[in-house]
Amino acid sequence: MKPGAPQNEAAHIIQELEKQKLKPVPLYGVERTVIAVIGEERDLNIGHLEAMPGVEKVMRVVEPYKLVSKNTKKEPTIIEVNGVKIGSSQIAAIAGPCAVESEEQMESVMKDLSKTGIKIVRAGAFKPRTDPYSFQGLGSQGLKILRETADRHSMATITEVLDTRDVEMVCEFSDMIQIGARNMQNFSLLKEVGTTKKPILLKRGMGATVEELLLAAEYILSKGNPNVILCERGIRTFEKETRNTLALATVPLVKELSHLPIIVDPTHATGKRSLIEPMTKAAIAAGADGFIIEVHPNPEAALSDAQQQLTPQQFSELMKNLQPIIAAVNKTI
Amino acid sequence: MKPGAPQNEAAHIIQELEKQKLKPVPLYGVERTVIAVIGEERDLNIGHLEAMPGVEKVMRVVEPYKLVSKNTKKEPTIIEVNGVKIGSSQIAAIAGPCAVESEEQMESVMKDLSKTGIKIVRAGAFKPRTDPYSFQGLGSQGLKILRETADRHSMATITEVLDTRDVEMVCEFSDMIQIGARNMQNFSLLKEVGTTKKPILLKRGMGATVEELLLAAEYILSKGNPNVILCERGIRTFEKETRNTLALATVPLVKELSHLPIIVDPTHATGKRSLIEPMTKAAIAAGADGFIIEVHPNPEAALSDAQQQLTPQQFSELMKNLQPIIAAVNKTI
Amino acid sequence: MKPGAPQNEAAHIIQELEKQKLKPVPLYGVERTVIAVIGEERDLNIGHLEAMPGVEKVMRVVEPYKLVSKNTKKEPTIIEVNGVKIGSSQIAAIAGPCAVESEEQMESVMKDLSKTGIKIVRAGAFKPRTDPYSFQGLGSQGLKILRETADRHSMATITEVLDTRDVEMVCEFSDMIQIGARNMQNFSLLKEVGTTKKPILLKRGMGATVEELLLAAEYILSKGNPNVILCERGIRTFEKETRNTLALATVPLVKELSHLPIIVDPTHATGKRSLIEPMTKAAIAAGADGFIIEVHPNPEAALSDAQQQLTPQQFSELMKNLQPIIAAVNKTI
Amino acid sequence: MKPGAPQNEAAHIIQELEKQKLKPVPLYGVERTVIAVIGEERDLNIGHLEAMPGVEKVMRVVEPYKLVSKNTKKEPTIIEVNGVKIGSSQIAAIAGPCAVESEEQMESVMKDLSKTGIKIVRAGAFKPRTDPYSFQGLGSQGLKILRETADRHSMATITEVLDTRDVEMVCEFSDMIQIGARNMQNFSLLKEVGTTKKPILLKRGMGATVEELLLAAEYILSKGNPNVILCERGIRTFEKETRNTLALATVPLVKELSHLPIIVDPTHATGKRSLIEPMTKAAIAAGADGFIIEVHPNPEAALSDAQQQLTPQQFSELMKNLQPIIAAVNKTI
Repeated sequence: MKPGAPQNEAAHIIQELEKQKLKPVPLYGVERTVIAVIGEERDLNIGHLEAMPGVEKVMRVVEPYKLVSKNTKKEPTIIEVNGVKIGSSQIAAIAGPCAVESEEQMESVMKDLSKTGIKIVRAGAFKPRTDPYSFQGLGSQGLKILRETADRHSMATITEVLDTRDVEMVCEFSDMIQIGARNMQNFSLLKEVGTTKKPILLKRGMGATVEELLLAAEYILSKGNPNVILCERGIRTFEKETRNTLALATVPLVKELSHLPIIVDPTHATGKRSLIEPMTKAAIAAGADGFIIEVHPNPEAALSDAQQQLTPQQFSELMKNLQPIIAAVNKTI
Repeated sequence: MKPGAPQNEAAHIIQELEKQKLKPVPLYGVERTVIAVIGEERDLNIGHLEAMPGVEKVMRVVEPYKLVSKNTKKEPTIIEVNGVKIGSSQIAAIAGPCAVESEEQMESVMKDLSKTGIKIVRAGAFKPRTDPYSFQGLGSQGLKILRETADRHSMATITEVLDTRDVEMVCEFSDMIQIGARNMQNFSLLKEVGTTKKPILLKRGMGATVEELLLAAEYILSKGNPNVILCERGIRTFEKETRNTLALATVPLVKELSHLPIIVDPTHATGKRSLIEPMTKAAIAAGADGFIIEVHPNPEAALSDAQQQLTPQQFSELMKNLQPIIAAVNKTI
Repeated sequence: MKPGAPQNEAAHIIQELEKQKLKPVPLYGVERTVIAVIGEERDLNIGHLEAMPGVEKVMRVVEPYKLVSKNTKKEPTIIEVNGVKIGSSQIAAIAGPCAVESEEQMESVMKDLSKTGIKIVRAGAFKPRTDPYSFQGLGSQGLKILRETADRHSMATITEVLDTRDVEMVCEFSDMIQIGARNMQNFSLLKEVGTTKKPILLKRGMGATVEELLLAAEYILSKGNPNVILCERGIRTFEKETRNTLALATVPLVKELSHLPIIVDPTHATGKRSLIEPMTKAAIAAGADGFIIEVHPNPEAALSDAQQQLTPQQFSELMKNLQPIIAAVNKTI
Repeated sequence: MKPGAPQNEAAHIIQELEKQKLKPVPLYGVERTVIAVIGEERDLNIGHLEAMPGVEKVMRVVEPYKLVSKNTKKEPTIIEVNGVKIGSSQIAAIAGPCAVESEEQMESVMKDLSKTGIKIVRAGAFKPRTDPYSFQGLGSQGLKILRETADRHSMATITEVLDTRDVEMVCEFSDMIQIGARNMQNFSLLKEVGTTKKPILLKRGMGATVEELLLAAEYILSKGNPNVILCERGIRTFEKETRNTLALATVPLVKELSHLPIIVDPTHATGKRSLIEPMTKAAIAAGADGFIIEVHPNPEAALSDAQQQLTPQQFSELMKNLQPIIAAVNKTI
């Protein structure tokens, strides 16, 4: 309560809490009264209480999510895709170009990536571009190219969906579905992919807290789809030398709070080719379950994100350089 | 170019630029070569250039948007809704509850707001809630209640749309459409509302720059709908005392860069009832074209955002208190 | 306590709290035990408690500052400088160049400013420059020039101090002392100026919260100097179009929390000449007690911050344009 | 230049640039004129140019620092302290309590740390505390305790200096000097420690960019002290689950830009004991030259930062767990 709030206001709150089947415990201090509450906090309408006269603030003790919480399920969730057990001691490596551009490009990248041992290929058919005049992706045609070239190389695929109306089609063509950072709080889309059984890669929004990321995952789980993989991809800060700020502490933090796997996207987090390798190593050392990296057969000719995509050769080099770190954390790839 | 980049790399870039029908002007310094470019910068694929060997960075001179730019259209855009000329010397006042909860609630709020001279009422039928277990709105039933109670009081309405599949229905029931902060970069939704002629209130994303806000508006204009009203509603910062940080300099900044109207949402920007009045005054003094404020007949019983909604009486008081500031900037309401 | 923390850990905490003469009230819930505490929270070593076994987190109920709090002193603090009552209904206008450059420059600016009714002139003798090779100020010679030219025009002065060793000298020459944003948590300097009786203008650090600003002021007051004026000058955010983000809600927020006056610095907050006037108007409308603006007789020739300083003519225009807003909030200047 | 700026304004700029012995190259586009400049950019007064009529903005091509730049000195700087070659392939491990509290405490911690192979001990005698009522350190008495106990165990010491007046004394007692995050832009202090030859650990300010960190180091080098070790310790962001956000990409980024060593402080970056080990591993994997971690013989009884200090046993465990990662990056400790 506010300092000096009259008795009857506290009485009003206590009554209200009892109506909600909670147990209020008033604590009378010198400066102010504090009302502790015992019971299921998640049922509490906090905004509602804060609006009542005399209330200064309402403080939460427990986290607001349930299904994604480690308190609900202790053992880590493992999601298998094309033989890769994401969330296990196997590092999940996902790679591929920013966008599907042509059959030739995808055929080339599939061939190159299969040589490096990659089992899951990423490529966008629907591209969320800040600028409306930038390349927006090949759409359904891109999905088909992705599927056909992947099948030829026994690859699983992951591609982003931007629109609830496309979820069904994307599910038909792709093994995994990506919810991009800009759509992390597109709740309609979260609910829609929650009704499928596809593994969902949920990227952290660039202005979203870790708690909001977990609540976004909760949306998907609450609709019946338990197959969610979280992805830290950098947040917006005042720093201008990197595209975003890779908040790597998210990885061990999520491991404490949730049973869901979490991977890292060093490409978008840094926006700089030279930082991708050190940050991938750091991610693995921090306990990440995998990574997703942009690789293009000819970055210079890429239709989007050219400056941050690795060549297949650079990527193959990176994969080799990761080995000692992966071994050091007792994992395999 | 990077310091020490070989001649042939610069030659390669120059060739590439000429292929793109641009005019490259190499400047040879002691430390490095800089290649200035004359021509239509917006056609340039910057990422592409950055991926070329020897390139250190590519710097943009002009803004990436066109249709929303003041350089394209000097005179301010004025959008008329129910007699309110948004973008003119008339301050646009939009008010109403966070969510449509019932016919009684809306009838009550319409009656109260019409007494204060309000002509446009806001209320959510589809609510974007961080927590999946929070009240999600009444959906289509909410839209009907909003329409019927508004008609009875000759009010125009604004309500948020969350899903491309709902755009048609929302257009049928509401006079204006809101794109919420979490959907500012939901490009599918932007394109969809761009195909309508409804006035769109586009709220700034909490992690989005002013340039990205203008580019989001560009998406809508580029699809044929020129009726966009921008809304500053606070950004995410490290400050914890307010829900968001109201970046009020956005108002005069947008006025310099664009011809579109811009209003301010002090409710969501601050999350604190006591800060709404001073920040609304500040917004008007800074040149905002209007404001949108949450008002609920009984905030204590509200199903969402209870602690930040004003009572009709508080709002009526606020409207009175704004008068001297509105007069001071030579505007009317 | 953590969920499932054993009884004896809670008992340990309770014992510890009782040793500190506080009254612990354990609340046994289903998931966890919460221990509420009654007594003087400010005496509590929170970090200490958080380190004890079984503790999940310690939550504070009251603010950590005392002397600056409105709960300690209800009536606003008014600080008089050269006839200007800062914190009263009189708007405090402070203006002057970024740096003292020469006697001619200061003489010129004093003459111009005295015509616009300015009573307090700002100018830096010690300049905190990000780049070591930038102009660092004239030092003690600058102080003398500032004093002499101010005296000739019956002006009070404010200038920044950067070093504890210079406090005595700066006090000798200047009527007010500025603690710059970069030194807001230079606690040695805060303590040193706290031993003087000079009015201190304490600028918010660009990465500091409002609570930290108030605690920095508490340092000064706790050393015996009650004459502190706070200054909001923008914080660091991801937005790149303005130099900083002016967090104007700080003004009414500080008015709720503290009795100290607060002014606004639109020059550094925006870094753009064209935004200074609208943001000064907004600051006054939001309840600011005054403003500090950079004015230079010839900005083009200024040795620092050239692009954001107003000419005396632009400033005189601004002062005229503020009149209606000042009148609208029932204040004078 | 601004679009439509008259010819004579461009001519004026060109003249001004020539006066500054730079070579202007005007580029006439359709929308606007751009003036490229060849010559020593660091001599350019950018603010000055931005203040000239017709100028829209001035864009920098090269970085503003010189002595710390890798372009100036290619080979990495190695600083030896007590046999530890900071900046070499030897990981520098620095550990110790937040503050010197007593001879017993320091004796105990020295004994424990020497067993784990630590050669450099940290402990604060002057503590920069946000709250004026928190423990402020033992001052000169603390320095003596630190020195005596270190000598007994053949340890080198590092301790923070807060005040220019204390630099001489701190130099007398300590082997290394720390400039804390809150003083990163305390330029008087930077200059003062720049006149010594002591190795300086310069911590990144929580609201400071990487460029500003490098410029702060440039201050020290420009005064004659080349022995600077940078330290990433987290920045302020909107995320609330961790105390700060550890921006680990700073490590490889600084390695690209500068020859100075950089270490990481996982204690202050996360504020959470459980995150220290994963983030230290990540730092080493990312290429950091070392780390600094808080260790206290009895964290529960610590006078400051209790919740984030490790016990000697936890630290010894951590040191063991780091071995595989250190080996994986071909380094030793």
